[in-house]
Amino acid sequence: MKILLIGGEGTIGKGVATAFRSREQEVITAGRNSGQIQVDITQPTSIEQMFQQVGPVDAIICTAGTGYYGPFHTMTTDLMLPGIQGKLLGQINLVLIGKSYLNKGGSFTLTSGIAAEHPARNGTCVAMINGAVNSFVLGAAQEMVDEKRINVVSPGLVAASAERYGAFFPGYNLVPMDKLVNAYILSVEGAVNGKILKVYN
Amino acid sequence: MKILLIGGEGTIGKGVATAFRSREQEVITAGRNSGQIQVDITQPTSIEQMFQQVGPVDAIICTAGTGYYGPFHTMTTDLMLPGIQGKLLGQINLVLIGKSYLNKGGSFTLTSGIAAEHPARNGTCVAMINGAVNSFVLGAAQEMVDEKRINVVSPGLVAASAERYGAFFPGYNLVPMDKLVNAYILSVEGAVNGKILKVYN
Repeated sequence: MKILLIGGEGTIGKGVATAFRSREQEVITAGRNSGQIQVDITQPTSIEQMFQQVGPVDAIICTAGTGYYGPFHTMTTDLMLPGIQGKLLGQINLVLIGKSYLNKGGSFTLTSGIAAEHPARNGTCVAMINGAVNSFVLGAAQEMVDEKRINVVSPGLVAASAERYGAFFPGYNLVPMDKLVNAYILSVEGAVNGKILKVYN
Repeated sequence: MKILLIGGEGTIGKGVATAFRSREQEVITAGRNSGQIQVDITQPTSIEQMFQQVGPVDAIICTAGTGYYGPFHTMTTDLMLPGIQGKLLGQINLVLIGKSYLNKGGSFTLTSGIAAEHPARNGTCVAMINGAVNSFVLGAAQEMVDEKRINVVSPGLVAASAERYGAFFPGYNLVPMDKLVNAYILSVEGAVNGKILKVYN
């Protein structure tokens, strides 16, 4: 299986890449500043160029994109825009453009996050983005053709990120990387479609 | 209670306005082309001007905004933009700007829709927008100060719209207006906060 992994050099992306490679799958990583292929998912033309370079694939996974974390009372929609253009519209464009490059029976796996249901303080923007991605996948899954599928993995606080981000998420359980990676494996190699795969602990 | 109702001349808005007026509340309606006050919620400056005209209020309700309905396979993010700027960022801006004009103990009530969980065919864009608004409210509710509250009403297919839209929603139960309006009353006059008030049948 030929897998295109956007965000393959991030914390989650690295774990996902390692897992699929150990399962004898071919993984091509893409990222803004790292990976085998450069792509800026905020730019549809950059996404198109990436797919033209890579050609048809059997699975498209996105672990890229983040959003504004900060005080609600000084938040503006301008502060929210990078996340909207990246994690939200960037992932949507990966699907809208990428579906022409996805082989029959192939799958998309996007990434949202626990904030969609359980936002932490300062996490309202990220909550909004994650909720949007989740619901987008529910709609898109119904309209896939050629046996293509789409799911979204919604991670909680990843154990590997606890040192950097743990202080912002008091009371959140840590998610072991192997459990989180299993959700991506389920989406890519399993038969599930239109699922929000929640890995909260 | 002084209630500002954006979208007060739409199908749901009319029902909401009538209900609160019959409960002896003062309702000021606002809309792009109708209502007592003109506002374009896609423009933050227009929202600011509306609040300066209206002054402090006890409740802010939004029943305005829609999103792209159409085939998934020809959908682009450009087609999604009006809905993102209106029902999504417009409602968010109503909160971010309006919280300065909301009296202590006041409430916001936004509107999403059943597509967040159960999108119909062609409804992926609207699903995304509704999911985003729902999760935004979960985050925002945690950070309200001065006993202010925020909820979102998620309507199913309103009976009053069945003739116009029913064909696009096969198998969806019709929601009687009085049940839907009750959710807005619960949000405004009740004590609930951070709730997604689902009225699906």
